[in-house]
Amino acid sequence: MSHAQPVWRKALAEGLGTGLLVTVVVGSGIAAAKLSPSDVGLQLLENSFATALGLAVLILTFGPISGAHFNPVVSAVDWWLGRRTGTGLTAQDVSAYIPAQIVGGIGGAILANLMYGEAAVSWSATHRSAGHLYLGETVATAGLILLIFTLAATGRAQLAPLAVGAYIGAAYWFTSSTSFANPAVTIGRAFSDTFAGIAPSSVPGFAAFQIIGAIVGTALVAILFPSAGAAADDVVTPHTETTAGASS
Amino acid sequence: MSHAQPVWRKALAEGLGTGLLVTVVVGSGIAAAKLSPSDVGLQLLENSFATALGLAVLILTFGPISGAHFNPVVSAVDWWLGRRTGTGLTAQDVSAYIPAQIVGGIGGAILANLMYGEAAVSWSATHRSAGHLYLGETVATAGLILLIFTLAATGRAQLAPLAVGAYIGAAYWFTSSTSFANPAVTIGRAFSDTFAGIAPSSVPGFAAFQIIGAIVGTALVAILFPSAGAAADDVVTPHTETTAGASS
Amino acid sequence: MSHAQPVWRKALAEGLGTGLLVTVVVGSGIAAAKLSPSDVGLQLLENSFATALGLAVLILTFGPISGAHFNPVVSAVDWWLGRRTGTGLTAQDVSAYIPAQIVGGIGGAILANLMYGEAAVSWSATHRSAGHLYLGETVATAGLILLIFTLAATGRAQLAPLAVGAYIGAAYWFTSSTSFANPAVTIGRAFSDTFAGIAPSSVPGFAAFQIIGAIVGTALVAILFPSAGAAADDVVTPHTETTAGASS
Amino acid sequence: MSHAQPVWRKALAEGLGTGLLVTVVVGSGIAAAKLSPSDVGLQLLENSFATALGLAVLILTFGPISGAHFNPVVSAVDWWLGRRTGTGLTAQDVSAYIPAQIVGGIGGAILANLMYGEAAVSWSATHRSAGHLYLGETVATAGLILLIFTLAATGRAQLAPLAVGAYIGAAYWFTSSTSFANPAVTIGRAFSDTFAGIAPSSVPGFAAFQIIGAIVGTALVAILFPSAGAAADDVVTPHTETTAGASS
Repeated sequence: MSHAQPVWRKALAEGLGTGLLVTVVVGSGIAAAKLSPSDVGLQLLENSFATALGLAVLILTFGPISGAHFNPVVSAVDWWLGRRTGTGLTAQDVSAYIPAQIVGGIGGAILANLMYGEAAVSWSATHRSAGHLYLGETVATAGLILLIFTLAATGRAQLAPLAVGAYIGAAYWFTSSTSFANPAVTIGRAFSDTFAGIAPSSVPGFAAFQIIGAIVGTALVAILFPSAGAAADDVVTPHTETTAGASS
Repeated sequence: MSHAQPVWRKALAEGLGTGLLVTVVVGSGIAAAKLSPSDVGLQLLENSFATALGLAVLILTFGPISGAHFNPVVSAVDWWLGRRTGTGLTAQDVSAYIPAQIVGGIGGAILANLMYGEAAVSWSATHRSAGHLYLGETVATAGLILLIFTLAATGRAQLAPLAVGAYIGAAYWFTSSTSFANPAVTIGRAFSDTFAGIAPSSVPGFAAFQIIGAIVGTALVAILFPSAGAAADDVVTPHTETTAGASS
Repeated sequence: MSHAQPVWRKALAEGLGTGLLVTVVVGSGIAAAKLSPSDVGLQLLENSFATALGLAVLILTFGPISGAHFNPVVSAVDWWLGRRTGTGLTAQDVSAYIPAQIVGGIGGAILANLMYGEAAVSWSATHRSAGHLYLGETVATAGLILLIFTLAATGRAQLAPLAVGAYIGAAYWFTSSTSFANPAVTIGRAFSDTFAGIAPSSVPGFAAFQIIGAIVGTALVAILFPSAGAAADDVVTPHTETTAGASS
Repeated sequence: MSHAQPVWRKALAEGLGTGLLVTVVVGSGIAAAKLSPSDVGLQLLENSFATALGLAVLILTFGPISGAHFNPVVSAVDWWLGRRTGTGLTAQDVSAYIPAQIVGGIGGAILANLMYGEAAVSWSATHRSAGHLYLGETVATAGLILLIFTLAATGRAQLAPLAVGAYIGAAYWFTSSTSFANPAVTIGRAFSDTFAGIAPSSVPGFAAFQIIGAIVGTALVAILFPSAGAAADDVVTPHTETTAGASS
């Protein structure tokens, strides 16, 4: 059962994981912008390379505790899909996961700022609001939800670290919005006026279309895998029976 | 049995998968050309990085439903190789898969255009026709067919997501034509006058040599794995028994 | 048991592995700086690409003999966590591993220098000392320890080659210090006045904060996986029963 | 038994595989030099990205038939290590593999030339001869041999596609010679006066030090895995029982 872990430990894992994800995104963005000043595409290549690898590692690390959601819309969809079969997150879990993800995301941005000798907090001045960017966030989030719940529904959630890392690495490029796809990470990225930042005033728009994307993705899951809810315990990656101290 | 899914759902998966593949190819091409204006090689590196990861993820996502062909010549060869053993796609499947792939491919190009704030459709003006490019497409498609049917014939089709993604990532570079290797994707790419586009007048030539490449690849499979047809159910990736709702 | 191998062979594996890791880091740094003179970010991308792949391969290669620690703080933490359960390295092992790692690291830098036609030894003049860099080393090392011991504690240490390679590839970018995270490698890198070098006078500071990071990481492991010590035999990657000559 | 395949089919697989490997190396080198004219490092990054992915795919494809040696020194060492236990290649196999590899390598260079609209053959004018380059080839080949035979000796040869691809991708960077590490590929690369070429007069020197590297690597294998010979059937990747037509 995914409830074998106390809620505090799962929330801690979500906070640390989301935080370090933002540290990876923001930190590698700062390094890229500083070291490759003359080509923004090269900066994004560096940023996406680091994020794809780092996200995979973070899901591997925290998955056994909390499932490695790191994303409020993933946690909400997991609760929604599993609510009838008694699988997935409980309402209580969700109410612990989401605040932990948001607080972690903010902390992660601050950590990145400090590691690069910047002020702890600097509000991003990068405005990101336009219809085509919102379409980008919708596509990015729908694809993420479809991927995650498909892997669980087909018994392959142990591939999630690699698959989700690869997805985000690609989505940085194929979506116009560079695929934030995550309200907690979006909030965190408002706290750093650097390459990966987003102006606070742009956060609500991005979050709204991330929610819309999550709904689209959930609808696709329901059409393609009608019984997906039964596998909600394995989202993003299996986290049952995995805390026994030793291998085999 | 691969027939456990209704045909409409398999066709939907092929349409969505092929469409999103074109979205990845075209979308990341637009981003690359815009962000790295001074080095075409860097653009192709960004484009191939995104495509390799994105294609792997799409095969993981839609494979359990339809096998994740996303490619008319793959579907046709699968039917051909399995026709004697009663494995692989039926003629009815093929007649649903191929239109879905083509419609999906066009839709994916339109989605990419819209995500980047371009007109929904702009015919590509990039002419691609020359003997050495046709040789490139022949090699690219032969290699793809050989890879896919070898994995199935040797019981390793569960590696197809990673392997096919890696193959296309490499083939962008080692073939002179940047490895379209797929008539449905080629048609879709005609609908976007951007980095990854191909002029409509160049589409028939590319498609013709993709078919020739598929024949070459099928001949190689027949020589190297005489009994490959018996494994045609597992092409591109296994899609039998995978829709039970939960993991073990 | 991990003690099935004689200590000399395990120490040899640690020396060769740590040495070749430094050869990869320093050698690819020399190539990157020489071939991409106009963009330091591109140099780091090349360096991190080579290091991620090379480190994964070295863990695969030497893991079955010694566990592929290649890092004094990993060996020390492994001894510490396993001391009560009689798992992990013995004090005798540690006293063989750490000197082998340091000697190997120095040898690896010399080999890289010689392969590129440089003097065998040239002391690095790259000063790396600042509070934010020390924070970077702390984060980098804490994350490495958390990853390695989480994989062991959850029976997934066979994923360590890929995971540790990916982690370092990302950490080159998201930490301000480019993630040395390893006292033996840090010492080795002092012996080459090239891209990846570190001035000898900066080594003690880096090593000190690597130790602090290891303590932070160990504390996180203790909080998240209270019974982690029982799996200390599988660190970094399983090295028990793996020297039988043949596969099944 | 690895002898279940007729020799002609194994030799065909070696010829095709080595040929396509040279096509990948030379073809992606031509593309890189043409598309990224202003940064040689970026060219090598593109070349190494394509080679790492392409080599992994080729080992996956041809491995089940012949083991995917693609390299005379690998075949020779495999025969040598297995000669006492009756495992690995027979002398007859070796005398079929090596000519096939060389002929394939030449054919692959010609195919790459033709795909890019060049003359079928143009002797390379890139002289590569210096002591430090020879040291590079020695290290590159020793590491390759150690990796391949370690994986077999420890029952993990099914990881060879990924591991050998990653190794070469890294070794392009950490060795001064860009890691040819293969006499057949070296000969093939003499037939193309492009990025990846090598002057015919430099071939014997490279081949000589590749042989020396193979001897060093074999010695390391003997020290670290005394019973490695018993697993010689699984080199580079398992090729026994894998031609049954279908997956389970």
